[in-house]
Amino acid sequence: MRRHCFGEKIPMTPFSIGVDLGGTNLRIAAYSQDLGLLETILLPTRLAAGRNAVVDDMCDAILRLLKTHGAGRELMGIGIGTPGPLELPEGKLHSPPNLPGWDGFELRRRIEGILGQQVTLESDANLAALAECMLGRGRSLGIDSLCMLTLGTGIGNGIILGGRVWHGTTGMAGEAGHMTIWPEGPACGCGSNGCLEMYASATAVNRLAREAIVADAKGIAALADMPGGITARELAKLAESGDQDAKGVFDLAGRALGIGLAGLVNTLNLPLYVVGGGLANAWDLLSPSLFAEVHRRSYVYRLTQPGGAAANGTRIMPAELGADSGLLGACILPFTLADRSPIRSTAVNV
Amino acid sequence: MRRHCFGEKIPMTPFSIGVDLGGTNLRIAAYSQDLGLLETILLPTRLAAGRNAVVDDMCDAILRLLKTHGAGRELMGIGIGTPGPLELPEGKLHSPPNLPGWDGFELRRRIEGILGQQVTLESDANLAALAECMLGRGRSLGIDSLCMLTLGTGIGNGIILGGRVWHGTTGMAGEAGHMTIWPEGPACGCGSNGCLEMYASATAVNRLAREAIVADAKGIAALADMPGGITARELAKLAESGDQDAKGVFDLAGRALGIGLAGLVNTLNLPLYVVGGGLANAWDLLSPSLFAEVHRRSYVYRLTQPGGAAANGTRIMPAELGADSGLLGACILPFTLADRSPIRSTAVNV
Repeated sequence: MRRHCFGEKIPMTPFSIGVDLGGTNLRIAAYSQDLGLLETILLPTRLAAGRNAVVDDMCDAILRLLKTHGAGRELMGIGIGTPGPLELPEGKLHSPPNLPGWDGFELRRRIEGILGQQVTLESDANLAALAECMLGRGRSLGIDSLCMLTLGTGIGNGIILGGRVWHGTTGMAGEAGHMTIWPEGPACGCGSNGCLEMYASATAVNRLAREAIVADAKGIAALADMPGGITARELAKLAESGDQDAKGVFDLAGRALGIGLAGLVNTLNLPLYVVGGGLANAWDLLSPSLFAEVHRRSYVYRLTQPGGAAANGTRIMPAELGADSGLLGACILPFTLADRSPIRSTAVNV
Repeated sequence: MRRHCFGEKIPMTPFSIGVDLGGTNLRIAAYSQDLGLLETILLPTRLAAGRNAVVDDMCDAILRLLKTHGAGRELMGIGIGTPGPLELPEGKLHSPPNLPGWDGFELRRRIEGILGQQVTLESDANLAALAECMLGRGRSLGIDSLCMLTLGTGIGNGIILGGRVWHGTTGMAGEAGHMTIWPEGPACGCGSNGCLEMYASATAVNRLAREAIVADAKGIAALADMPGGITARELAKLAESGDQDAKGVFDLAGRALGIGLAGLVNTLNLPLYVVGGGLANAWDLLSPSLFAEVHRRSYVYRLTQPGGAAANGTRIMPAELGADSGLLGACILPFTLADRSPIRSTAVNV
């Protein structure tokens, strides 16, 4: 912000540009802290046209937003969310499953070459966690650290410590979706077996539903024959209507989440764990077995519950923000980076 | 340190007092950064005499060391390591398995009441990790963040970020020994089943060896009949001599460690993971299955190995310091706290 001296203009309002680059949709927005999203541009991600075409679409939209909203405002930065895994600070993609053909693509360099200015890349799961921390559950609770699992096609994971994304050494922290839950479980695309993602992603729920059909789940079989086929939403409706097989799918997904979350609670002792993504809409179906496992498997959780030794120390909740969380995270990323102080420990001060 | 002004005395050398309070031994030391351990007092932990007697022994030794080594030196602080779980900043113990009868004991308040000055409590696993980071593997590699598993009666865990202990919200971070490895595994004292501690602690190795005897492991059965019985050390010797059953015990312990470490690597993306404690002496027996599991279950690990996209980003190694690490950690704790800046991210700077 300009210095506010006598005789000078009043300080310019800071704003930012945020981008959410997904395998299907590309969203670009201008944002200010006082007004929120000033304008959002929605585009299809033209994967078939090649990665350069997608980057061109993105940069074109960024430049338009800068022109429309830049007058009288100061640009804090441009935040870009992409599917992981993302190598930082290089801003290089590693075999992103949702962006086939983008392996090894130096996305940051390419965008900066076109725009002629610096941008900051971040994985979409980290940005969803950042938004949930600063604008969602974290803000509601007055907490600036959390661990978030985003249940989508896969399971994204972001860890926020003291209002900042925890990257780890090479920018690859937050892959808890690939924690092993059942070591001899089904093979995961990552090379392991029985990853959390194999039980509690939307893809996994679909697979579990199909396995239930083979085991004679008549309600799910009827659902599979409907025009839309098996979706998490329809399966949740079926479960809510009392179908035990459909309930069993969510029960298993909740168990896997609970086993994974218990490990994270025991290891990290953060104040807040958030479950987001489309499948989190089925929270009422997932949460009973989830909490049963966490309660059984984490004595840190038990000690930090009301009535425990350190009450109210651990909360596990569904996300507050919806599908916009990734885009909002990209928008607020430049503001969180403007504070260049190191990550503050949420830890007790000893 | 005193201000070093013209006409004033030369600055006093800083020193600290460190205590390692274990279920069997009580060790109290005076330490300076230039000379290391100035003097160490070894006492039995007189559990039978009651907790107040143990605290009196400790405080008496601290006062003697302060008197002996305090002249011409400035006290940086007194660090005290205790078995966890420990609630911070209260310095209150929660059912420590190795200190029966100490549940809910406000240890810090008691010690400060006797000494008339502030002390800092920390769990022994966190202090071992701190020492390994600042004086052991971390120093050798020039790395100031790590996650350490200490294989003892149970499995301790400490996480160091930027040269400081990561406590979490209520001081209970670092209980990765209770990560679930096999969800339907044997019941653990923590209330869960199949915890890492049930496969890779010294206690677990003993149990696995006895289970092998039931399954007709003749070599181990012969070992059980020897005067010393089954110890991890003797079992390791048997395995090294080629006994397949004994090898199988370490193989399973290594597998469990590998599954747990893979989850930690995927979640935290730290530069260094250290395995310490007595059982880590059997590193050559544990490491083949450990690395096989980590390699298979963590693509973050694979990407951060030589030849991977982000080479040399993740190291997994046995501890460099021995049984003194807890005591050394208690001694250096006051020095790390003297730097009051927030935890620095080892993360990439984006």
